[in-house]
Formats: sequence, structure tokens, C-alpha cells
Amino acid sequence: MKETNGLKGCIEFLIKCDDMKDIERRNLNISSRRRENDAEHSWSLSMMAITLYEFAAEKVNLERVLKMVTVHDLVELYAGDVFAYDSERNIGKAQREAEAADKLFSILPEYKGTELRQLWEEFDRMDTPDSRYAAACDRLQPLINNFFTEGHTWQQYGVYPDSVLKRNEVVKTAIPDMWKVVEYFVAEGKRLGYFDKALKK
Amino acid sequence: MKETNGLKGCIEFLIKCDDMKDIERRNLNISSRRRENDAEHSWSLSMMAITLYEFAAEKVNLERVLKMVTVHDLVELYAGDVFAYDSERNIGKAQREAEAADKLFSILPEYKGTELRQLWEEFDRMDTPDSRYAAACDRLQPLINNFFTEGHTWQQYGVYPDSVLKRNEVVKTAIPDMWKVVEYFVAEGKRLGYFDKALKK
Repeated sequence: MKETNGLKGCIEFLIKCDDMKDIERRNLNISSRRRENDAEHSWSLSMMAITLYEFAAEKVNLERVLKMVTVHDLVELYAGDVFAYDSERNIGKAQREAEAADKLFSILPEYKGTELRQLWEEFDRMDTPDSRYAAACDRLQPLINNFFTEGHTWQQYGVYPDSVLKRNEVVKTAIPDMWKVVEYFVAEGKRLGYFDKALKK
Repeated sequence: MKETNGLKGCIEFLIKCDDMKDIERRNLNISSRRRENDAEHSWSLSMMAITLYEFAAEKVNLERVLKMVTVHDLVELYAGDVFAYDSERNIGKAQREAEAADKLFSILPEYKGTELRQLWEEFDRMDTPDSRYAAACDRLQPLINNFFTEGHTWQQYGVYPDSVLKRNEVVKTAIPDMWKVVEYFVAEGKRLGYFDKALKK
């Protein structure tokens, strides 16, 4: 599979990937209260996938999961981050991201571009144990960060508790022990007023 | 291996890990010229390990490599980051990091704490194909970022070209095709004056 000529493309791709550190997300980091970026978020998912591996309910291949969470947001290098609860800006997102993927993965040697694109597509489809486990981490991590920053994003955008439960549904299948934690954080969040913008409008 | 009671420790550990986003390194990110943090750096190593996998000269287990690069700097949560070329502050570093590891990994259920500690120790020893490949990525990534930020760290701390070559030596064994790239970046860096602080003092 190795193509020595492909090394240049790999380096060029890695340099482009460095810009993931400049793509801001909506949620905050816990201590600094600074907005998280895509690189930080993706690392947190690796950390979570490693830490919670024994709690995965389906048989998962951790190597594939770690690859998936590492690359799952790369298309945002060209397509930008769209907030999960922003239904308007989510229109046309799939098309924009497919075009971004064409542009990004073609920097790489073909074997590698194809591999990463397939992992990204599988992640988005959530139709395999690996992608469900990866997606569960992707839902849980911002939920935890939102809870420990007094519901920052939920308050800012008026997100409903039920929307958070719905978005985290894959956790039920992938990491059932964590579903209880999701329910706890949402219930506690309600009690503490972290959803007041939505619930009191 | 699963211990349901261990879930609380896992979550507490993940919350602590979020602070990796606040530990600044010496090198800059390429576009923003902002100092990189440990979480961003670790994600970049995952990205590099995935991208350059086919160029690894020894047979490596990518799952273990990805775990290693994800956790390799975690002890800095308690021990702080020490600049690679700062020989004075590197005295006593091993002891400080071992104490930090005791503190950090004991938050986790024992099976997981032991696993991550062993991976971190193996990474540091560089005595297996997996740890050599992981360490090669750990050396290459800041080298690339330094080159594309006009030798920022090299200039700021007066680092010699030979010190960079020496620090990157593991690349020769682990990713020989990248060794030529290391030599190229160092030679070009010299030509462009990125080592002038060391060479002209």
C-alpha cells in the first residue's frame, strides 16, 4: 500500500489538519471557559473511547473507533462547524460536507484518502457497532462539558432537555451504563436551571 | 474487566483530562501562531500516526500507538510541561512525572489505570516498535510546526540544528522515509536563518 511519492501529500494533509485548532465549537472547556476547538474535541473523544471501552455494549474494534473519532470532524476544515441544535444551518450540510471531503481527502495518496473518507462516512451513518460507539462518545463529551459549565450552550441557544436526550439516544445502545448518567445530567441540569432559557421562554 | 462501580472514576478522570487544553507547549500552531496546548498536540499525533502508518518501518499495532499518543502527556496535568531542550528543568522530571502518574491514574478503576500507566511508560522507554513509532510522531510534529512558523521555538530558545537532529533520531528507525524530510527541514531552516539565535551567538 505504501507509495513513497505519497509522502508529500501526507505532509501537506497534516499541515492542513493543523487548522482544526482554529475551528471553534459552541461548547466551552471546563476550567478555562474558553470555546473548545475541533482538535481539542477530537482528542477528548479518543480519551473517552479509550477510558469507557469496557463499558461498550457491542463488540467494538478500538483501532477503528480511534481512527473515526480522530477524523470525524475533518471536513469542517472546508465546511465549517454547524451547531448540532441549529436546524436551519443544518440544511444542506451533507452536500457542503461531501464537497469538503472531496477537496480534503484528495490531498492524500488515494489509498489513505479512501480509507479516511470511508471512516468518516461510517461515523456519520452510525450503522455499525464501531460508529455507534464513536458517535456515543461524540454526544457524551459536549454534554459533560455543558453540564460542568452551567449549561453554557443549552442556555445560550435555548436548547430543550428533550433535545439533549434525543441527541444522546445512541448512548442507550452503545454505552447503556452511560445512559443513566445522561439522564442524571439532564435532570440535574433542569433542577439547577441550566435549561431555563428554553423552558421559561 | 468491566466494573460498573468504576464508571464514576472514569467520568472523574475524563473531567480532569479536559484540563489538558490549558497546558501550553512552547511551539505554535501554524496558522494562528497561538501556542499549542497538550490536547491539540496529542490529537495531531493521532492524526500523524494514522496518516503515516504505511511508512512505519517496523510492524506496529496502530491501536496501541493511538492509545499511547493520546495518553503520552497526561502526567503533565500534575507535573506540567517541560520544554524538550531545557536541560536544567529536565532534571528531576522523571520523579515528578512518576508522582503525577500515581495521582492521576489512581482516579481510574485499577484495570484501566494500570493499562494507561503501562502505555505511558512504554512510550517513554521507546523500546518497542509501537513506542518508537509513537515517539517518532511526537518528535516530527513540533518540528513541522516549528519549520512552518519560521523556527519559532528554535529561535526563541536558541536551539541548535544538531540538537533537533539528535532529538529526532528515533525517526530514522521508525519512519525512515521521514528522516530525509527531517534533514531537509533542518537544512532549509539553517539556510532561512531559523537557527540564527543559536548559530550567531
